Amino acid sequence: MAHKTITEPDCEADAFRDECGVFGIFGKADAAAVVTLGLHALQHRGQEAAGIVSYDGSQFSVERHVGLIGDTFTKPSVLARLPGSRAIGHTRYSTTGGEGLRNVQPFFAEFDGGGFAISHNGNITNALTMQRELQKRGAIFSSTSDTETLLHLIAMSDREYFIEKFIDAVTQLEGAFSLVGLSGKKMIGARDPLGIRPLVLGDLDGAYILCSETCALDIIGARFVRDVRPGEVIVITEKGLRSYFPWGEIKPRFCIFEYVYFARPDSNVEGRNVYETRKNIGIELAKESPVEADMVVPVPDSGTPAAIGFAHQAGLPFDLGIIRNHYVGRTFIQPTASIRHMGVKLKHNANRTAIEGKRVVLVDDSIVRGTTSQKIVQMVRDAGAAEVHMRIASPPTVASCFYGVDTPETSKLLASRMSTEEMRDYIKVDSLAFLSMDGLYRAVAEPSRNKECPQFCDACFSGEYPTDLTDRDSDDGTRTLSLLAKHG
Amino acid sequence: MAHKTITEPDCEADAFRDECGVFGIFGKADAAAVVTLGLHALQHRGQEAAGIVSYDGSQFSVERHVGLIGDTFTKPSVLARLPGSRAIGHTRYSTTGGEGLRNVQPFFAEFDGGGFAISHNGNITNALTMQRELQKRGAIFSSTSDTETLLHLIAMSDREYFIEKFIDAVTQLEGAFSLVGLSGKKMIGARDPLGIRPLVLGDLDGAYILCSETCALDIIGARFVRDVRPGEVIVITEKGLRSYFPWGEIKPRFCIFEYVYFARPDSNVEGRNVYETRKNIGIELAKESPVEADMVVPVPDSGTPAAIGFAHQAGLPFDLGIIRNHYVGRTFIQPTASIRHMGVKLKHNANRTAIEGKRVVLVDDSIVRGTTSQKIVQMVRDAGAAEVHMRIASPPTVASCFYGVDTPETSKLLASRMSTEEMRDYIKVDSLAFLSMDGLYRAVAEPSRNKECPQFCDACFSGEYPTDLTDRDSDDGTRTLSLLAKHG
Amino acid sequence: MAHKTITEPDCEADAFRDECGVFGIFGKADAAAVVTLGLHALQHRGQEAAGIVSYDGSQFSVERHVGLIGDTFTKPSVLARLPGSRAIGHTRYSTTGGEGLRNVQPFFAEFDGGGFAISHNGNITNALTMQRELQKRGAIFSSTSDTETLLHLIAMSDREYFIEKFIDAVTQLEGAFSLVGLSGKKMIGARDPLGIRPLVLGDLDGAYILCSETCALDIIGARFVRDVRPGEVIVITEKGLRSYFPWGEIKPRFCIFEYVYFARPDSNVEGRNVYETRKNIGIELAKESPVEADMVVPVPDSGTPAAIGFAHQAGLPFDLGIIRNHYVGRTFIQPTASIRHMGVKLKHNANRTAIEGKRVVLVDDSIVRGTTSQKIVQMVRDAGAAEVHMRIASPPTVASCFYGVDTPETSKLLASRMSTEEMRDYIKVDSLAFLSMDGLYRAVAEPSRNKECPQFCDACFSGEYPTDLTDRDSDDGTRTLSLLAKHG
Amino acid sequence: MAHKTITEPDCEADAFRDECGVFGIFGKADAAAVVTLGLHALQHRGQEAAGIVSYDGSQFSVERHVGLIGDTFTKPSVLARLPGSRAIGHTRYSTTGGEGLRNVQPFFAEFDGGGFAISHNGNITNALTMQRELQKRGAIFSSTSDTETLLHLIAMSDREYFIEKFIDAVTQLEGAFSLVGLSGKKMIGARDPLGIRPLVLGDLDGAYILCSETCALDIIGARFVRDVRPGEVIVITEKGLRSYFPWGEIKPRFCIFEYVYFARPDSNVEGRNVYETRKNIGIELAKESPVEADMVVPVPDSGTPAAIGFAHQAGLPFDLGIIRNHYVGRTFIQPTASIRHMGVKLKHNANRTAIEGKRVVLVDDSIVRGTTSQKIVQMVRDAGAAEVHMRIASPPTVASCFYGVDTPETSKLLASRMSTEEMRDYIKVDSLAFLSMDGLYRAVAEPSRNKECPQFCDACFSGEYPTDLTDRDSDDGTRTLSLLAKHG
Repeated sequence: MAHKTITEPDCEADAFRDECGVFGIFGKADAAAVVTLGLHALQHRGQEAAGIVSYDGSQFSVERHVGLIGDTFTKPSVLARLPGSRAIGHTRYSTTGGEGLRNVQPFFAEFDGGGFAISHNGNITNALTMQRELQKRGAIFSSTSDTETLLHLIAMSDREYFIEKFIDAVTQLEGAFSLVGLSGKKMIGARDPLGIRPLVLGDLDGAYILCSETCALDIIGARFVRDVRPGEVIVITEKGLRSYFPWGEIKPRFCIFEYVYFARPDSNVEGRNVYETRKNIGIELAKESPVEADMVVPVPDSGTPAAIGFAHQAGLPFDLGIIRNHYVGRTFIQPTASIRHMGVKLKHNANRTAIEGKRVVLVDDSIVRGTTSQKIVQMVRDAGAAEVHMRIASPPTVASCFYGVDTPETSKLLASRMSTEEMRDYIKVDSLAFLSMDGLYRAVAEPSRNKECPQFCDACFSGEYPTDLTDRDSDDGTRTLSLLAKHG
Repeated sequence: MAHKTITEPDCEADAFRDECGVFGIFGKADAAAVVTLGLHALQHRGQEAAGIVSYDGSQFSVERHVGLIGDTFTKPSVLARLPGSRAIGHTRYSTTGGEGLRNVQPFFAEFDGGGFAISHNGNITNALTMQRELQKRGAIFSSTSDTETLLHLIAMSDREYFIEKFIDAVTQLEGAFSLVGLSGKKMIGARDPLGIRPLVLGDLDGAYILCSETCALDIIGARFVRDVRPGEVIVITEKGLRSYFPWGEIKPRFCIFEYVYFARPDSNVEGRNVYETRKNIGIELAKESPVEADMVVPVPDSGTPAAIGFAHQAGLPFDLGIIRNHYVGRTFIQPTASIRHMGVKLKHNANRTAIEGKRVVLVDDSIVRGTTSQKIVQMVRDAGAAEVHMRIASPPTVASCFYGVDTPETSKLLASRMSTEEMRDYIKVDSLAFLSMDGLYRAVAEPSRNKECPQFCDACFSGEYPTDLTDRDSDDGTRTLSLLAKHG
Repeated sequence: MAHKTITEPDCEADAFRDECGVFGIFGKADAAAVVTLGLHALQHRGQEAAGIVSYDGSQFSVERHVGLIGDTFTKPSVLARLPGSRAIGHTRYSTTGGEGLRNVQPFFAEFDGGGFAISHNGNITNALTMQRELQKRGAIFSSTSDTETLLHLIAMSDREYFIEKFIDAVTQLEGAFSLVGLSGKKMIGARDPLGIRPLVLGDLDGAYILCSETCALDIIGARFVRDVRPGEVIVITEKGLRSYFPWGEIKPRFCIFEYVYFARPDSNVEGRNVYETRKNIGIELAKESPVEADMVVPVPDSGTPAAIGFAHQAGLPFDLGIIRNHYVGRTFIQPTASIRHMGVKLKHNANRTAIEGKRVVLVDDSIVRGTTSQKIVQMVRDAGAAEVHMRIASPPTVASCFYGVDTPETSKLLASRMSTEEMRDYIKVDSLAFLSMDGLYRAVAEPSRNKECPQFCDACFSGEYPTDLTDRDSDDGTRTLSLLAKHG
Repeated sequence: MAHKTITEPDCEADAFRDECGVFGIFGKADAAAVVTLGLHALQHRGQEAAGIVSYDGSQFSVERHVGLIGDTFTKPSVLARLPGSRAIGHTRYSTTGGEGLRNVQPFFAEFDGGGFAISHNGNITNALTMQRELQKRGAIFSSTSDTETLLHLIAMSDREYFIEKFIDAVTQLEGAFSLVGLSGKKMIGARDPLGIRPLVLGDLDGAYILCSETCALDIIGARFVRDVRPGEVIVITEKGLRSYFPWGEIKPRFCIFEYVYFARPDSNVEGRNVYETRKNIGIELAKESPVEADMVVPVPDSGTPAAIGFAHQAGLPFDLGIIRNHYVGRTFIQPTASIRHMGVKLKHNANRTAIEGKRVVLVDDSIVRGTTSQKIVQMVRDAGAAEVHMRIASPPTVASCFYGVDTPETSKLLASRMSTEEMRDYIKVDSLAFLSMDGLYRAVAEPSRNKECPQFCDACFSGEYPTDLTDRDSDDGTRTLSLLAKHG
């Protein structure tokens, strides 16, 4: 008997994964406990590992742990090792960098002028190119993360003051970055000039907060102040807050996929409520691609708001025709050939009694590789559905993301190699429709997509990347470090 | 700074908890892997610990682990230690018995005639009384679980054959029990004569399965054969299946709360689909207690099906006005007074944009202590709801359960000490209504409750217990074992 | 590359292992901490696992841990869970019983009259035979240890008072047992009628102590009172100590191998100092088997006292020609064939400079399988010794022990299948001599061995077992339990 | 009851601790397994943690673990992650640097030209001074270890070839360093120009080995080739071995304390056998400070060889009057005041029967704080010794070591603040004598100490440091990093 532990092949890998949530607070007793709560609210942005750095006025403390926040940072002994009224944290799903705690953020560096910690959401598209240059100048890298590059750029900057060094460094970066940093005197927030990833400013009894989404303010009853602006560097000290705009005026291009899938439905990002936007998406989808049917069934949980909007617009009943098992761990068995052939349903089960004999509209947020969709459709058919229609709450995803989302290579994306009709055939549905690009823009309250200068980053749908991709386009495109195997 | 680790006080403790799921399969290669999958589907019936006993034709193997199935039993090394084509398992939330692995089932005993393992869902109401008697006859107990009593009754029975001893033993038990046992030659299933807890019979490629709910058949694509009947003892051998009815004809009284809360919505138990029944409950509730409002909001996740039914019947929009964080661990911090006063929302967040200015109908499955309801109502009000109406998908819970559900003492139940109007006041809603008892019976397709001989066990709503409660009513009502503190 | 983790084959397995140390104290604050210290001093009697049961006047608490005392029971959290002024403990190397915490003592049982815990050093030679009988009477065994049999005998005894039941039970046992028990009111000590294993009585500020060796009294500065007598049952209560001699007058036969190897050199057992006895052994050995040589080298550490005696008697220099590495863990690698051929010296290294060109007398305590002796001789020869003479501080070991010592089967004992000359050849020494049986008796201050009625148990040297060996001689000699594989 | 876990106060802290052992092999299959064995033999040089870096021709692999080698690196899964025929390792007791795996060596850096790993025994006395300079040039430190400084010096060197950069870097270092490095093509060994710490060259079937002591060659049957010379840089490639002497001719000053205490008795370092040297020390001590007595008793284990020499020279019997418990863990309890007053003897016990009424000469290697000596003398007196004379196998230790040995501050050293007579009084012995400085030099076969230019580093006895102590003497003598608290 040879059991293999494998990551559930289709369901887990067949999805986009956002990679990081960041949270910092400046000037609140037991800051690390507040950060723990904030990171807990951002857990959907990264479930693999988390870290917190606190500062108590004289020294920094750091804790990094693999696992869910609620299992690691909630231990009193862990919090007791993080004293101070200033702290920043990070929760991550890996994008760049190998496994292991040394890639868990916040990163910390001891500079000539003191310590500095940083948390990063996004991905720097010229990190490797700059790393090679920095190594030639004598820099030693202790992680394989793109974020460490920023620390070396600061360390090697010839500017005089720390904030100048920081701005000197970030302006050399390409790509997407929402950063929260903590030095002995300052908390710093920064967004790349396009504002690809979210970052919001909050306030809790006079203590400033910088975090990825408003849901992390809600959990502690903090007040939402405003979004940090694209291209803004915010410096918070005991005297208050100052803003810098080192890139000047640039048209922002926020990631539209945050609305489709990443952000939590109760968050407001860049001025829009995520739940309402998703319902709008469902409404637009029902307008564009109506269908004769008996019920609208969401693919849980991400398809639910769009399904509610679709059902409302279509005048069809909304029903839980698929039940999700919330207890799934990270890996699961596929012990033997015989069990593999059972078609094990670890995460979802069709609700046969509800579905049997019905014409079902399935609403899902997106199609990545298509394997999950295949399985779910088959499951719904096995449960006796008379017809299965699939409606997707976004345009076809045809291109990889280089801005901090863990996507398969372009060639693995179903929509990059099939027409909608071919996909319909592959997924085996009676009809398949995606939201149009303009429909998506309408759902986020734009009249339509501005083709010359799109209002959002929609590269995964359009293939139009708003920044250079220097590392990808360099001659030695692949990363070739000596130390590939790190453990312990 | 003194952090305390506490179980989240109101939300976690303010709920009924079912205690156990059981699963056994007889005659399928890699039986333990199949049981693992079945227990995973039954994880909602007990999340604290699990165990599996397998038999490979010559010896039994046992594994017991604290934690979620998906984190413990999916390790290849664990499954490799459970060889054989017959296996039974158990997943539990503690009811009787202290902490520690020695109370994790299945229990195993080495009898004169060979080994026997048993998994139990329910609670035996005369276990202690019988334990004292058995101890007088020289029995030594190695756990504090009521289930071990059964093993001693079998061991001390003077009948000749094992199945006779088993029936001799179970017929001495009072209370609720759905059992799955495994001996060297047999798998045995048994339900108490009232059939209080569910137990179903399935079939996978000719291998018999006994398990708590049909969702555990679905996960592996097994066929539902029938419910095990109340008072039935099923004996499965290589030759097939035989039934015994040692209690003769008794009117069954299945636990009606399984429909309200415990069972998974995609399961069918005792001939009814749980999801449809819950939607019916919502419909009955809307008929009985309609309200002028703008939206129906479920208290996630257990209130969702009833809310869908309510919204449908009431012609109101169904909306996710409360978002649940699915990443909550078992314990969480309440580090300092200042943080406690934040009113931290670990599990739920109001979706302000959706709720603001609206008249909201909240639908929840039941009210236990009322503390969770209070917090949720406050949260919804803080998010700007114009009015908050609470509709409860069951009658008031006025009495503790002694049949395997972890309930507070009767005096802690809000409904046992307040009128509906007092509760409305306590929870601070604009209106509060419970489903009537007859409404609940109508939702499960009975014309009304038969007062003389109720069709279900509804003791938590009526206080009418269908069995004797010998241990509770004994002179030394409290359990007084010498060894109260067991660790490791 | 296929690494195998194996127990170091020759060195570890090629030795006798004592199995258990016991320690109990009655009437001293923080009793569990005192027991921890006592067990630490007895660690040489069992290194695999340990347990402590304490009683605080109203309830018993139990902790069991795998690992060294100094790594497990010294944690404040562990001790905090063991309150009370009475406690007993046990440290073990496995003899009977499989692996796993459920075989770690003290065992605890909840009797009709209250709780009772017991620690056992020795081995019961009719345990299985009695277990089968008890199972027929309905007893359920929860461990595979011989000690549990005693608990069932007590539970099933028809005597009235507990101490009567206890005596009724122990008098049904065969074999070797030094026991310490703890009930709600008493601490009980008992030795088998031959007194095969040691047990001593001590006193710490008025609190009675029962423990295996005096070194466990010394560590806490307790006073040695006397040896518990063979066949004595001691009952300690708040009122003081009472003795029972249920077996009447029987000639004792203490294990002579305790002097040769098991007991700690600084202990006094049965009236003799172990270190002095071992030096006497060396002196007798030098008298019986002198040799022309340049230096006497002990095989560390157990051969050291005899080597000192030998060197003194022979007028030769005593030198550390072999150095022991004290950091050896339990398992070690033998990764590949090439490394196996290195002849890795994990535990011992020859001190080449001291040995080169010298005629060396190696003194070791005993020869079991002979493989260790072979390796050590080879190592000493490789280091350039001119001659190697081996002197063994005991007679040839020709028979297995059934009294609590983990010995190979008789056929695996080198001396059971070879003459001394053949052994000399096998071990490749220039000369080999064992101490004579009478020499050994002289060293423990007897004129000679009384052949009719030997003063000690010397079965490992003589094959004359002083008790029946019922289990070994029963028809179904092998243990055939259903549950052979227990984990977790 | 408030138990405190404390490091055993007197015994553990009252000793010098060497800090590191290094081992590397170049060109042997399963190199990491060989390194594991070598580190096991060097475990006495550092027991806290260990690391191994291997190289398989294309990539480096690294493992770092806290704990004994025999418990961590012997796992097949660990070794399987360390493929390749070249590997270096390190075992450590902390000297500089905080706790945590990030200070466990070997350190690894990704340079412009490839990867490089390094293991260091010793201490660099200008590391902090150079670290500050390097930080000004933009270097980021990821550990708090002095060894990382070397990596940055290499990275920032402007020389062309790697070996030039390495020599450029090491020649900027002050203090003691025996280094073993591994790059993609080379294994490098280096000793500081005074050769303060040992490093030897060995050969196993044609594969070169560099390691701290010869006992690490013996364990795998490797051949001792020669000591690496003070000030030598050895470069091993596939083509063979080359030597560099970048410091030119400097008189070496090997640490004389390696002979007194650190090195293993079976090792030969710098041309002398350690065991023989220690016996010589005992002989010199007996000549210088004879005493009328009945027996010579070593303080185990480090005093044993000198005691043998002393007894031999004095014509007195050598006896094990103190027995050591080898099972002591790292921490132990001192649970309550009452237990503290027991005078618990965790590590040593007097062998009363051997000592009682005797005039005892205790031989120990050195006196650090004196607290251990006090306790041991008291224990021997309590056991009934008629007289207790203490003989110390080295001169009084009056000054701290800055070359890689963990010593208390000078003011905590008993000999720095008391005369021998005062110490005699403090320790409460009948007589006390230390070996003279010239006696120590004679024991290592020098006619006497050359006062102008001592043949050894004897700073701990003389206070004459052979190198500058730049960090100690800098204006900001104390280390003031921002990040003092690192965990996890």
